[in-house]
Amino acid sequence: MENLLILKGNIIFTQTPEEFKVYKDSYIVSNKGKIEGIYNILPEKYQNCLIKDYRNRLIIPTFVDLHLHASQFIQCGMGMNKKLLDWLNDYTFKLEKDFSKAQFAQEAYNSFADELIKRGTLRACIFATSSTIGTEILFEILKKRGIGAYIGKVDMDRNAPESIIESKDQLIKGTKYLIEKYKNEKLVKPIITPRFAPTCSDELLKELGSLANKYDLPVQSHLDENLDEIKWVQSLFPKTKNYSQAYYLNDLFGQTKTVMAHCIYLNEDEINLVRENNVMLVHCPDSNINLRSGIMPVRKYLDLGVPIGLGSDIAGGHRIALNESMVRAVQLSKILNINSPGIKPLSIQEVFYLGTKSGGKFFGNTGSFEKGYSMDALIIEDDKLISGRYSIEDRLEKFIYTGDDRNICARYVEGKYIEI
Amino acid sequence: MENLLILKGNIIFTQTPEEFKVYKDSYIVSNKGKIEGIYNILPEKYQNCLIKDYRNRLIIPTFVDLHLHASQFIQCGMGMNKKLLDWLNDYTFKLEKDFSKAQFAQEAYNSFADELIKRGTLRACIFATSSTIGTEILFEILKKRGIGAYIGKVDMDRNAPESIIESKDQLIKGTKYLIEKYKNEKLVKPIITPRFAPTCSDELLKELGSLANKYDLPVQSHLDENLDEIKWVQSLFPKTKNYSQAYYLNDLFGQTKTVMAHCIYLNEDEINLVRENNVMLVHCPDSNINLRSGIMPVRKYLDLGVPIGLGSDIAGGHRIALNESMVRAVQLSKILNINSPGIKPLSIQEVFYLGTKSGGKFFGNTGSFEKGYSMDALIIEDDKLISGRYSIEDRLEKFIYTGDDRNICARYVEGKYIEI
Repeated sequence: MENLLILKGNIIFTQTPEEFKVYKDSYIVSNKGKIEGIYNILPEKYQNCLIKDYRNRLIIPTFVDLHLHASQFIQCGMGMNKKLLDWLNDYTFKLEKDFSKAQFAQEAYNSFADELIKRGTLRACIFATSSTIGTEILFEILKKRGIGAYIGKVDMDRNAPESIIESKDQLIKGTKYLIEKYKNEKLVKPIITPRFAPTCSDELLKELGSLANKYDLPVQSHLDENLDEIKWVQSLFPKTKNYSQAYYLNDLFGQTKTVMAHCIYLNEDEINLVRENNVMLVHCPDSNINLRSGIMPVRKYLDLGVPIGLGSDIAGGHRIALNESMVRAVQLSKILNINSPGIKPLSIQEVFYLGTKSGGKFFGNTGSFEKGYSMDALIIEDDKLISGRYSIEDRLEKFIYTGDDRNICARYVEGKYIEI
Repeated sequence: MENLLILKGNIIFTQTPEEFKVYKDSYIVSNKGKIEGIYNILPEKYQNCLIKDYRNRLIIPTFVDLHLHASQFIQCGMGMNKKLLDWLNDYTFKLEKDFSKAQFAQEAYNSFADELIKRGTLRACIFATSSTIGTEILFEILKKRGIGAYIGKVDMDRNAPESIIESKDQLIKGTKYLIEKYKNEKLVKPIITPRFAPTCSDELLKELGSLANKYDLPVQSHLDENLDEIKWVQSLFPKTKNYSQAYYLNDLFGQTKTVMAHCIYLNEDEINLVRENNVMLVHCPDSNINLRSGIMPVRKYLDLGVPIGLGSDIAGGHRIALNESMVRAVQLSKILNINSPGIKPLSIQEVFYLGTKSGGKFFGNTGSFEKGYSMDALIIEDDKLISGRYSIEDRLEKFIYTGDDRNICARYVEGKYIEI
């Protein structure tokens, strides 16, 4: 019995991108962290179990953020007048080097974890920095907090300041150390993380691909974020046909499960490679606008059946709350629609699906409330003026558009209550 | 001495759109609500006065929101899949009729006022509803709270549901009643508010123009928000050359000071009319995207010297915090820049200027900390990880991009502390 969790409330989630599934005043039951079912009337076998009755509140899946930089959290929302390279030099790189100091890393990553968890993101693919010590601290913090995360030591051996790059051998040594230490963890796991092709030598990419294969580890990186970057990659990797190939030829593009951020400018060959290798793309709407990168053609990719999740891309994006990325994804799709009425804007159902079940697939069966899925849930509380007047769908939309952490009154991962 | 207010901290504001004025660890002094000066060393004559020492916090002007609908506050962030007309019918109009019930108006407007004030907007041009009773309640609430606002009973006599329109005579009677009651108030004042031309007969517009002239009252309405609306106006006002003329010919376009929301599609004639009559335009970026209206060519208007302020346009816009409108204004300008690199994006300085001093001109000398301006100030508190590492400009930018009401630890209007 102690493995059972029964929550009662207004349950709402997206099994498909087309519509919300809504169960008013119902029970959701999990056993050992996996969902057994949703019931309007609780089955006989559970009659003696404790019920956490959240009354008129909403019960929704937790958010899944497929791309963000933990080390950039404290620089969120600064230097936004600047273009990418100046911004990196003046803000990001300066800050990154301090994460090799344990005390600073501890303080900054704790502050990051607090906000991430408070705002309902309980599964995430995270970039740390190149520092092994710093990255280990992040592993420990998130492990203790009980959320699900893939955490990458950010590997790069060229085209970045001396203070934050390491030699290939140092990088691999640190990466291996973290893999060995965390490979058997249940919730917090390593992910192979070349920063992006321009900062990695071909040799480094090759070794990282070998590690991914050897340990069967997932991969994350950046791809086709802006046009200058694409030209740069062409000049750095003259033998590869396109940007994606720089990863693909090094076993870093779907040979093990892979998530690639941005992907605004994939050409047809790259789209085919993405589809053949089941690479998950991450739409980071705020970041793409803040850094003037462009707008991902999400509708086109979705129509082609490409898997897509959402990313806050802290700190190219400025808001760590994933519901805000959902809103911005709708807004950017509306801008595309204004300019080309044939491109249907994203619905609230679709962006919720992207930020929960679709992104959640990267972690297995998470992000939905179907049978067998992980019991990852947020409890949402709203004002009585709203809850008495509007439908459950409207109330969820309102939370996504206007809510913040103060509307989230409880959080669960694999059936366990998460403290904040 | 009791008329003096002395605040100490890091003072930052925009006297011009080009740059922040920054006074580190300085004193700002007001007398009877008007600013006397900013001093690094406090002048002798103030040596015995009480100082409110906010230490390392920021002191900034309060936000000025030039366009929002108080009655739509509780519907924020709902129905965002819908287009304008369905959205109005399914959400807005349904809700609006309830504001003629005193108890509901009281509850809903209190909730609106709470959020507006908490989030730092202490000057605003507000649409209520067509209900005289409801609008009077809003006047009383905001008067009691001590903020500065122009409040309009929303007049319309056609093309809206029966339940929320009144006859011209009823409308004028209610409007006059509110004018007489509040015309001598210092902070909360009436504003002539035809909803927008399509819902007003020519006769109603004419009478509203007469009222504006007779009492020397300002005017607010909507203009050139979307292309269908513009066509509709053409068919409803076949004799007027353009949408702006429908107001202008009725003395509602600069004959008394006037603020017009949206103005995305002004043609050259209209731009000239706006400039000649010194009409203030309101950029409402979130609303314009949420309702798929378009993007205001802000840079073009600014280059032509047209006065512009910012509006949250609750509930076409979904966030009542004006700092979020500032961010969205930057983001939309970056989208225009991505498509047309010749159009320079708005800087953080420029949008801060739009949302403080530029919009503040509608209220007289407000929105800046120059001598003679109203002492309208917010005190901003941030995390020690940030305040110890970054410049005052960076810290303000971070608050604008990522902050919320929890970062605002005090609010002043005309030198008076505002309770929340």
